[in-house]
Amino acid sequence: MTKIKVGIIGSGMMGPIHAEALRRLGYVEVVALGEANQDLARVKAEQLNIPKAYGDFRALIADREIQVIHNCTPNAMHFEISKAVIGAGKHIISEKPLALDSRESAELVTLAAKAGVVNAIDFNYRNYPLVQQMHAVVKSGQLGRLFLVHGSYLQDWLIKDTDFNWRVEVAAGGESRAVGDIGSHWFDTVQFITGDPVVEVMADLNIVHKTRKKPKQTIESDSGNILTTDDYVNVPVATEDSATILFRTHSGASGSCVISEVSAGRKNRLYLEADYENGALEWDQEEPNRLWIGRRDRPNESMIKDASLMHPEVRPFSHYPGGHPEGYSEGPYNLFANVYVFIRNGAKGTPTFSTFKDGHSERLICDAILKSNRTRAWTRVGA
Amino acid sequence: MTKIKVGIIGSGMMGPIHAEALRRLGYVEVVALGEANQDLARVKAEQLNIPKAYGDFRALIADREIQVIHNCTPNAMHFEISKAVIGAGKHIISEKPLALDSRESAELVTLAAKAGVVNAIDFNYRNYPLVQQMHAVVKSGQLGRLFLVHGSYLQDWLIKDTDFNWRVEVAAGGESRAVGDIGSHWFDTVQFITGDPVVEVMADLNIVHKTRKKPKQTIESDSGNILTTDDYVNVPVATEDSATILFRTHSGASGSCVISEVSAGRKNRLYLEADYENGALEWDQEEPNRLWIGRRDRPNESMIKDASLMHPEVRPFSHYPGGHPEGYSEGPYNLFANVYVFIRNGAKGTPTFSTFKDGHSERLICDAILKSNRTRAWTRVGA
Amino acid sequence: MTKIKVGIIGSGMMGPIHAEALRRLGYVEVVALGEANQDLARVKAEQLNIPKAYGDFRALIADREIQVIHNCTPNAMHFEISKAVIGAGKHIISEKPLALDSRESAELVTLAAKAGVVNAIDFNYRNYPLVQQMHAVVKSGQLGRLFLVHGSYLQDWLIKDTDFNWRVEVAAGGESRAVGDIGSHWFDTVQFITGDPVVEVMADLNIVHKTRKKPKQTIESDSGNILTTDDYVNVPVATEDSATILFRTHSGASGSCVISEVSAGRKNRLYLEADYENGALEWDQEEPNRLWIGRRDRPNESMIKDASLMHPEVRPFSHYPGGHPEGYSEGPYNLFANVYVFIRNGAKGTPTFSTFKDGHSERLICDAILKSNRTRAWTRVGA
Amino acid sequence: MTKIKVGIIGSGMMGPIHAEALRRLGYVEVVALGEANQDLARVKAEQLNIPKAYGDFRALIADREIQVIHNCTPNAMHFEISKAVIGAGKHIISEKPLALDSRESAELVTLAAKAGVVNAIDFNYRNYPLVQQMHAVVKSGQLGRLFLVHGSYLQDWLIKDTDFNWRVEVAAGGESRAVGDIGSHWFDTVQFITGDPVVEVMADLNIVHKTRKKPKQTIESDSGNILTTDDYVNVPVATEDSATILFRTHSGASGSCVISEVSAGRKNRLYLEADYENGALEWDQEEPNRLWIGRRDRPNESMIKDASLMHPEVRPFSHYPGGHPEGYSEGPYNLFANVYVFIRNGAKGTPTFSTFKDGHSERLICDAILKSNRTRAWTRVGA
Repeated sequence: MTKIKVGIIGSGMMGPIHAEALRRLGYVEVVALGEANQDLARVKAEQLNIPKAYGDFRALIADREIQVIHNCTPNAMHFEISKAVIGAGKHIISEKPLALDSRESAELVTLAAKAGVVNAIDFNYRNYPLVQQMHAVVKSGQLGRLFLVHGSYLQDWLIKDTDFNWRVEVAAGGESRAVGDIGSHWFDTVQFITGDPVVEVMADLNIVHKTRKKPKQTIESDSGNILTTDDYVNVPVATEDSATILFRTHSGASGSCVISEVSAGRKNRLYLEADYENGALEWDQEEPNRLWIGRRDRPNESMIKDASLMHPEVRPFSHYPGGHPEGYSEGPYNLFANVYVFIRNGAKGTPTFSTFKDGHSERLICDAILKSNRTRAWTRVGA
Repeated sequence: MTKIKVGIIGSGMMGPIHAEALRRLGYVEVVALGEANQDLARVKAEQLNIPKAYGDFRALIADREIQVIHNCTPNAMHFEISKAVIGAGKHIISEKPLALDSRESAELVTLAAKAGVVNAIDFNYRNYPLVQQMHAVVKSGQLGRLFLVHGSYLQDWLIKDTDFNWRVEVAAGGESRAVGDIGSHWFDTVQFITGDPVVEVMADLNIVHKTRKKPKQTIESDSGNILTTDDYVNVPVATEDSATILFRTHSGASGSCVISEVSAGRKNRLYLEADYENGALEWDQEEPNRLWIGRRDRPNESMIKDASLMHPEVRPFSHYPGGHPEGYSEGPYNLFANVYVFIRNGAKGTPTFSTFKDGHSERLICDAILKSNRTRAWTRVGA
Repeated sequence: MTKIKVGIIGSGMMGPIHAEALRRLGYVEVVALGEANQDLARVKAEQLNIPKAYGDFRALIADREIQVIHNCTPNAMHFEISKAVIGAGKHIISEKPLALDSRESAELVTLAAKAGVVNAIDFNYRNYPLVQQMHAVVKSGQLGRLFLVHGSYLQDWLIKDTDFNWRVEVAAGGESRAVGDIGSHWFDTVQFITGDPVVEVMADLNIVHKTRKKPKQTIESDSGNILTTDDYVNVPVATEDSATILFRTHSGASGSCVISEVSAGRKNRLYLEADYENGALEWDQEEPNRLWIGRRDRPNESMIKDASLMHPEVRPFSHYPGGHPEGYSEGPYNLFANVYVFIRNGAKGTPTFSTFKDGHSERLICDAILKSNRTRAWTRVGA
Repeated sequence: MTKIKVGIIGSGMMGPIHAEALRRLGYVEVVALGEANQDLARVKAEQLNIPKAYGDFRALIADREIQVIHNCTPNAMHFEISKAVIGAGKHIISEKPLALDSRESAELVTLAAKAGVVNAIDFNYRNYPLVQQMHAVVKSGQLGRLFLVHGSYLQDWLIKDTDFNWRVEVAAGGESRAVGDIGSHWFDTVQFITGDPVVEVMADLNIVHKTRKKPKQTIESDSGNILTTDDYVNVPVATEDSATILFRTHSGASGSCVISEVSAGRKNRLYLEADYENGALEWDQEEPNRLWIGRRDRPNESMIKDASLMHPEVRPFSHYPGGHPEGYSEGPYNLFANVYVFIRNGAKGTPTFSTFKDGHSERLICDAILKSNRTRAWTRVGA
C-alpha cells in the first residue's frame, strides 16, 4: 500500500481544500506545500500538517519524491508554474483558470500532450452527483433536441466599493474578473451537461464601481471580514463586476447567462436551466442535492440525490445514502478520486475528468466574451 | 347607487376574466358583450350572464348606455377597436399589446389624450401586492443604485410542433409572438418596479419549430387540451418561440431577459431579480405571495404578503389577511378598482394605473427588439 | 335570467368575502346585509354596495325576497341564527364552526334535514383545485393504504400578550380557540382528502399567555394593526394558544397535528402530508398551487395547478391557465359555485360541497380534543 | 507531528464515514479496522486503505498502539464493546444509540467517568453549522421564552414489506426501531438547540407491515438496492415503522414529533421548528445550509450558511465560503475535530461535543416513549 506522493503549491482558499480532499482518498499523501516564501510556507505547512515546506515552487517541483503537483496559486501564476511542472515530466492538477488567456492555455495543452503527463483542471461543479446525472440523462438522448439554455452565477462579496481582493486587479487576476473567475465555471458546467459547445457569444460587461478602496493588507476571497475604513487607497478598476451574455451553441440552441459579483444575498449561486424538447433540467449549486425536471404533460419532477434513482455510471459520485446531503467538499474529492485512479492505473484510456483541454475551451470562450464586449458585436469562439 | 355601465368586446381567455373582476367591484355592471357574430355573442353572453349581445363591435360602441369599453379581442384587432372607442368619446380599457407596432400605439396615445377619455391597459402583473411593494421600496430610495436586473418569462404551451394557436400567425398575433405576448409583461413589470426605462436592447430571437401543424379548429391558449393528430395542416412559422435579450437602462444598469414558450414544466413563470446597491429583490409570479430580499451583511429576507408588513400606500392592493394567498384574479380586480375609482371621481389627477402611454412604451421596446434581432446589433429604444 | 337573492348576516372579516365571491357567479344577487344594529348595518351595506340593511337578523330572515342566507357572525351566534334561518325554511350557508359544541351542531343537522333546506358550511380550503386533486387521487385508490397523516396549522397573530380579539374569550368564541378556529379547517381538509374519519384523539392544549391585555376597542382578526399600549385591561385567558394532537383514523392510520396561533412568521400555514403505501402527498396552503408527491423508487413530483394535469372531475375548480395562481378568494367562489348550482337545479342528488354534517363531524372531533386534554387520555370521537 | 492512532470497529455504513472524516483532520491516523471475522476484516481494511485488520474486537482493543476506538457496530453490540474499550482505559467514540436501553447506557456513563476516558457519541446532526447557529442564538436569550417545538424525521427506505435490514429485528437493532434509530437524532438535535430537556412524553407507535419478507443475504441500510423477490422468508415484525409523539419540556413548552421510515419520497428528512416568543427557527437536514427565522412584525429571514453572518463561536463549524454547501460529511468531521482537539489538549475542561451523557439522555427518552406506548399514558422521562 505505497501512497502516491503529492505537492501543493499555494495555500490560499483552495490549497487547504485540495489537501483535505486528497487525504480522504486514503492512498494519496500530501508531502509538501509550496508558498511565496519560506516563512509563510513553514507556518502554513504546520497548520495543515504537511511535512515539507518550500519557499520556492521550483524547489518543490524538483523534489524527487513528488509525483503529482497541485497548482493552487493566484491566476497570474498558473501558466508559469504549470509549464514548469510539465517541463519536469510530472502530473499536474491546476486550479482554474488554466491561464490568463487562450494563447497561454493552448500552449499548456500542447506541452502536456507532448510530455504525456496526466493533466486536470479543477472545474469542481461538474463533480456534484446531480450534475453528473444531468450529463448522463442528456447523453442518453431521452431529452431530445436542446432548445434553450440559461442561468446565472451570482455572488455578493464585491458589492461594496470597500470590498477588495487580488482578483480585482488585472495584474494578479487577469483582464476578466467575474467572467474569468465564476463565469468560467458556469460555461464549463453547461458545456459538460449539454455536450453542446458554445460557438458564438454577445457580451456586455459592466463595472459598477469604477474605483475601489484597496486596503493595505490583503484579505481572502469570500471571507466575510468587515474591515474598518481606515487606510484604504482608491484604485481604478478595470475588471468587470458583472456580465450579461447571449450565446449560441453548436447545435443551434440559444443561450443566456448573467454573471455577477455584486448581487446582494447571493453567496455562490451557480444556477442553470436547460430546456429540451422532452423536458427541462434546473439545478442550483446552493441546493445541490435537488434536481428539478420540467415536464409538459405530466407533473414536474424533483429528484433528491439518491444513488438508487441515478444512472448506474453516476452512482460512484454519491457517497452517502439519499437525503444525506453532499456538498462542496465532495466536488474536489470526486475529481481527485477520478484523477488518482487514472494515475494509479497507468494513465491508460480517456480521462473521465476535466483536463487542460476543457481549461483551454473555457479560455477561448472568455477571450471571445472580452472581444465581443469591446466590439459590441457577436463574436465567434476560437476565431 | 347607480352603477357604471360597461361593455366587453371579446370572450376568449380574457373577456370572462374582465367580467368577473368587474363584478367584484359591486358598483360596475357589465351590460353588453361583443363578439365576432351575433350567434357567438348570444351564446357567450348567456354563459356569462351578460344581458345584451352584439355581433358587431361598432353597435356595442354605439350603445348609449355604455360608458366604458373593455377591448379583449385578438391582438390584430386592438388598434381598430380602441380607435373606434376613443372616436366615440368613451373610456377604454385594452388588453395588451396596445397595438401591433409602435406607430399604431403612438397614434392611440395621441387620440386618447385629445379625446380626454380615460385609457388603461391591462398589464395585470403590476397589480400583485408584492409587485406594488417592490415599486414602493424602490421609489423610497432605500435600495440605492440599480446595478443589474435580470430574469425570464417561461411557458411550455407551445413546446410541441402540434401546439397551435392564433398567436402563432403574424396576421392575428403580430410579427412578434413570445416577446409581444409575454415579454411585454416582463418589460412592463420591470420598468414599473425600477422606474428606470429600458433605453437600448440587443436581442436574439429563435424559432425552434420552423413549421407547426395547424389544426382545423381553433384552440384557446394555455388550454392544456390534448388534440388528436388528425387533420393538421403544416404551416411555416415566422414568429419566435423564444428570445434572449440584453439591455441597458436609463440609469446605466445592465439587464438580461429570457423569454420562452417552449420551456417544459414552466406554465407561466414570470421571474425577475433586481440587484441594487443595498439589497436585491426577487419575485416569481408562480408564487406571488412571497418576496425575497437579498442582503449582503445580514440574513436574506422572505416577506409573505401581509398588509402589516407592507408600505401603507400598497395595502389597498391586498384584500385578505397575511398567509391567505392572492392570485391571478386579484390582478385585474386591483387594476379595475383603480381605474373605476378614477372614473367615478371624474378622472381628475394622475392615473395610478397603467395607461396607453405604458402600452406604447412596451411597443417601442418590442420594435427595438425585432430590429436588433434583424440587424444583430445593439438598438436604441424609440430611435 | 332572474337572479337568486341572498342576504348576508355579519360584516366582519368573512361577510365581505362572501359578498364578493357571490358576485363573481353572475346569477346571484346580494340584496341585504344584517348587522348588530341599524347604524352599523347601513354604513357597512353602503361600503359593500348592498341595497338593503337590517339591524336585526330576524328581520333579514323574514325578508320575503331573500332565498338564501349566509351566516358570517361571530362563533357564539352561529347556532341561534342558523336555527332561525332553518326555521324560516330558507337555505343556509354558515361560516365555521357550525356551532359551539357537538350537541348544538347535531341539532342543526337534524333540523336542516327535517326542513329540507340546502345547508352548507364554509370549509373553504377543500375548494382549492389541488386539494380537490388530492381527494380525487386518493379516491381512485392508486395510492393504496394510508400509513400516516400529519401536519400543522400555524399562525402568529396572537403571539404577543397585547394581541387581542373576540375569539380569545369563551363567551364569543367558544371553549376552544386554536383548535376550534383553525384546527377545524385542518381536520376537515384531512378528512376530505383521505376519506378516512378520525376516530380517536389524544390532545395537549397549551395557553402560553395566561393573561392578555384587552384593548377597549375591538380589532379585526389578522389585521396586523399595531396598537398603542394604553388603555388595556388584563384579562385571564381560558382558551388555548396552541395544541399538539395525536389521532388514529378509521382505517388504523396514525396521525399528528400541531395547531398554533403563536408561531412567529407563520401567517396562515395549513400544512399537511399524507403518507400512503404507494406515494405521499404534501400541500401547503400558503403556496396552494403546488402539490408535492413523494415517491420511493422514482423522482418525487411537483405538480403545478394546471387543468390539463388534473383529474377531469377536478378541472372545474380551476379557472385560469396553468401557472396563473389561484388564491384564497377562489375557495369560497368554488364553494358557492357548487352550492348555487345545486340550489338552481332544485337541490336534487347528493351535495358535492361541505354540509352541516361535515360541520358536525368537526365539532365531534373538537369536543373529543377538549375532553382528551382534560382527562389526559386517548378519547373516542363521538363517544 | 506524531499522529493520534485510532482503531475503528465495524465497517458497515458508518465505519468508512468515520475513517474518511478522521483523515481530513491531518493529525489522526486510522491504523486498524475490526470486523466480525478475520477474512472480512482483511478485505474491508484493504478497501479502506487501513493497515491492520482484526477479526476480534478484543484484539483490536488490546493493540498497544491504539489510543482511541470508534465503535461503529450494529446497535446490539454497542454496550459490550464500549464497556470493553473503557475497561482498557482507552478513549471511546460510539455510534448511536449508546446502548439498547437506559440501564445499559447509565452503566456506560458511570464507567467512563470512573475510568476518566474521553467519551463521545456521534449525534452528527448537531455539527451542522446552522444547527450550531440555532444553539448559539437560543443560548443568547434573544428569542425569549420557548412556546412550542415540533417537527419530524421521515425516511422511506422501509416502505415496502420487501424492504429488510438488521435494524428490523429486535435481536440486532433493539426493541425500538424508528424511534431508536432516527428519533434519537431528532430528540438530541432539539434538546441541543433548545437547551430545554424533554421531561414527559405521550407516544403512539405503529407497525404498518406486521410481517416483512427477509432476504437470505443482508443489505445495507438506505442502499437503494432493488432486490428480486426470490428467496424471502416471512418474519413477524415487532419494531415500529413510525411513531407519533407529544412531549413537554422542562420549561413547560409543548412539543410534537413524527418519526417514520415509511414516508414515500422522504430520504432523510430531519425537520424541526422551534417557536419562541420573539421569533421561530426552522431547519431541514435535507437542505442544511438554509435557516429560516420566522418574525411577526417584519419579514421572515432566510440565512444562508455564511461565516460572516453567524455567531463568532460557531464559525469554526463552517469550512467553506458562504454559498459553498456543507453536507453530511462535515458532521462527523466537525464532531471529531472537537473530540481530537480535546484529546490532544489533554482532555481538560468541559467537552464541547456530545458525550455518553447525551447518549444516556436519549435512551431515557426512548425508554419513556416505549413505556408510554405500552401504557397509552403520559410518561415521565427518567422516572
